[in-house]
Amino acid sequence: MYPNWLMKRAQLTGERVGLSWASEEWTFAELDVIARDLAGRLVRLGVQRDSRVALLSKSHPDFVFMMHACLHLGCEMVMLNERLTEQELIYQVQDCEADTVLTDDANAERLNTVNKLLFSTIKEAVPAEVEIQREWPVDRVVSIMYTSGTTGFPKGVKQTAENHFSSAIASSLNIGLGARDSWLCMVPLFHISGFSILMRSLIYGAEVRLYPKFDAANASDELIQGNVTHMSVVGVTLARILDELDNRQMAVSPNFRVMLAGGGPVAVSHIERAAAHGINVLQTYGMTETASQTTTLSPEDAADRPGSAGKPLFLYDVKIGAEDEILIKGPHVTAGYIGRFADVQPTEDGYLKTGDIGRIDAEGFLYVLDRRSDLIVSGGENIYPAEIENVLTGHPAVLEAGVCGIRDGKWGEVPAAFVVADTISAEELDAYCRERLASYKVPKRYSFVRELPRNASNKLLRRELKTWN
Amino acid sequence: MYPNWLMKRAQLTGERVGLSWASEEWTFAELDVIARDLAGRLVRLGVQRDSRVALLSKSHPDFVFMMHACLHLGCEMVMLNERLTEQELIYQVQDCEADTVLTDDANAERLNTVNKLLFSTIKEAVPAEVEIQREWPVDRVVSIMYTSGTTGFPKGVKQTAENHFSSAIASSLNIGLGARDSWLCMVPLFHISGFSILMRSLIYGAEVRLYPKFDAANASDELIQGNVTHMSVVGVTLARILDELDNRQMAVSPNFRVMLAGGGPVAVSHIERAAAHGINVLQTYGMTETASQTTTLSPEDAADRPGSAGKPLFLYDVKIGAEDEILIKGPHVTAGYIGRFADVQPTEDGYLKTGDIGRIDAEGFLYVLDRRSDLIVSGGENIYPAEIENVLTGHPAVLEAGVCGIRDGKWGEVPAAFVVADTISAEELDAYCRERLASYKVPKRYSFVRELPRNASNKLLRRELKTWN
Repeated sequence: MYPNWLMKRAQLTGERVGLSWASEEWTFAELDVIARDLAGRLVRLGVQRDSRVALLSKSHPDFVFMMHACLHLGCEMVMLNERLTEQELIYQVQDCEADTVLTDDANAERLNTVNKLLFSTIKEAVPAEVEIQREWPVDRVVSIMYTSGTTGFPKGVKQTAENHFSSAIASSLNIGLGARDSWLCMVPLFHISGFSILMRSLIYGAEVRLYPKFDAANASDELIQGNVTHMSVVGVTLARILDELDNRQMAVSPNFRVMLAGGGPVAVSHIERAAAHGINVLQTYGMTETASQTTTLSPEDAADRPGSAGKPLFLYDVKIGAEDEILIKGPHVTAGYIGRFADVQPTEDGYLKTGDIGRIDAEGFLYVLDRRSDLIVSGGENIYPAEIENVLTGHPAVLEAGVCGIRDGKWGEVPAAFVVADTISAEELDAYCRERLASYKVPKRYSFVRELPRNASNKLLRRELKTWN
Repeated sequence: MYPNWLMKRAQLTGERVGLSWASEEWTFAELDVIARDLAGRLVRLGVQRDSRVALLSKSHPDFVFMMHACLHLGCEMVMLNERLTEQELIYQVQDCEADTVLTDDANAERLNTVNKLLFSTIKEAVPAEVEIQREWPVDRVVSIMYTSGTTGFPKGVKQTAENHFSSAIASSLNIGLGARDSWLCMVPLFHISGFSILMRSLIYGAEVRLYPKFDAANASDELIQGNVTHMSVVGVTLARILDELDNRQMAVSPNFRVMLAGGGPVAVSHIERAAAHGINVLQTYGMTETASQTTTLSPEDAADRPGSAGKPLFLYDVKIGAEDEILIKGPHVTAGYIGRFADVQPTEDGYLKTGDIGRIDAEGFLYVLDRRSDLIVSGGENIYPAEIENVLTGHPAVLEAGVCGIRDGKWGEVPAAFVVADTISAEELDAYCRERLASYKVPKRYSFVRELPRNASNKLLRRELKTWN
């Protein structure tokens, strides 16, 4: 059993700021009051305790308040990605069988479903009397996030209270914990990158310094002014911050302690540029199934080991299995999936089968050689080629399709499609995909080819495709 | 499952200092090598993996090395208090049924038992090949410490890996965690006060700055030089450090962050004097059954709430039960006892029945009004009146005995005995007790009385006795 984290923070460090947004801020005690009030309104509107609710919202304090209200009610929260198309959203809402969908007003039109509650409707309801959940079982499902894999169908990943707690603790045992930590959050709250910041905030008693989205100028302001101590980035956003700092020629505040960089290796030159600005970049290897980080690499180690993802954190074990697959064990590993993949067991002998390919050197440093299912990491979003291929082959004119990532100056990587098709144009395919895929997943290039590269057992060779570009 | 903590620290932060002693120091990697070597020697001498061993030693690096070796072998460690008499030690060694007793050479003569291994013997053995225990089950019993209660018979308290881990984590969520923390240890390693420092060191990757015993001059040197960041004290040792600092009129280094004060409330005047020296005193309420702290009080809160023990840490819950008994819940609470008390269940509905009396105010601050079984806290040692009374009434001339604590300038409290007896002198009783009780438990005063204060059901009223002094 855990105590209700927000309730406990309100009792222990109620006067500390838990959330800030531009010039507004809320203490943990205030967040608790707001969440209790909203919990009462949700109950008034028919939301059941311990039920499963889906949430669709842009990053905003209201989104945070709604999540805290859901946590107080013991609800399982399905975190919907606001960049998805309606078709993609409907798949997830149906698969998870959410009793209710809570959505901010801006996203209200994006999803037509009967069981929808708008944030404005919730805020206008009269609060019902409600007992908040004072204790959380360790295996309580706190959040569910969809991620695709080799099948191309998004799977809803369960993240328990223990997953989030042990993730926060393992991270603190690596990077330390200050009494006045503040985490700059410019990554989506519906992703594990942003959601884990919210969880750490509750567990550590730290501030979430929230922004609607990534912005290099705002980030640089925060780093220079010394309001924040931590930030999560991916390679491309780090590069944009470094460019901004180069232009300004101003020093980052010594208050700023850790820049956590996910989504694949960061170039050594960037690490060095960051160091010159006084920024300590910790590269990390994490995923939805592990409630954020599994390994991290310190800047001191980065210079000698370009491409390494570091060592597993204190509570975790990583080993290399058959066919060089990376296997992960620890209390942060998901208990499994929901919906149509509920019967799929993600672990074997206690180890999560990541599908990623890697090696571990003699000193214990992990190198991720190839991401699972030829994963494309584009500006922090994970894109699974199989999902795009599924959509493309759904078009009557398309016989076969193969997708791979290609380099992109702004996003790091973007998807490119190779299609074996009857008479159809790239424009037609693009329009077709735009209806069915979030825009970041829509291929940036279509190449019409006579056949796709396949191995003896006819398996598509996406790595081969990359050389065709 | 946890990873083997020392092994993991050697992998992750192998170059950090894990232990220091005067001018010597050992990194975690070095501690791991020493412990593996000693584990091999212990196996050569017949110590079985996963067996129960008792340890008797003064505070010294060799004692730390032996504990690490035992941990590598999966052994349960019974921590013997070197201040006990042979009779007291034999009771514990027999009750715990330890397969082996490991003792430093200085204490070798204090305990005659066949299954004894001297540290010098162990160091001279030829190491056997041995596989260390790479993973620790969360319910693995790491340590066993004897503590008395109302019965007067010491009970062996089990402390699991989860007890120690959650205690370390809950503490870090309160006081933070730095990359270069160093904990000054002048409290006994066989007590939870010292043992918990060793555990935190492994979990945090922090240094244990070890001394053979408390010494106000050495402590002041360390605080002024800024080598250490944390220290554990009790009221009387804090007072002696403050006197020393007053004499020297030198400032404590800003590196020093937290002085953790156990063993009962600290006078507000001491908190203020400490603050004037730049020392942040956190008062804490803890016990063997909770693997150290349950509640702590910050210095800011101390001024307004004299006598409070603070609020329960993040993972814990405290409530007041029947007859105002303090009840404690959390992952740090003991799984129970061994030996003759193996069947005693320490918890009820998940709450540890402490036997202590207390109240909680509207803001959630705990006040400990009366310690269990009229506990006497003397210079950091817990003394149970019933245990001394049992010894006294064992003398043929003694009809009845009652013991209570009386104020003492040096130790805070010391035991005083009230005896209903036939012709016997205080000197004779003193000699009798010295044979059977550790010297700190021997009454400092004997009063011969006609009868003892008892209530209607004939229960001894020790609180009444206090007023007789």
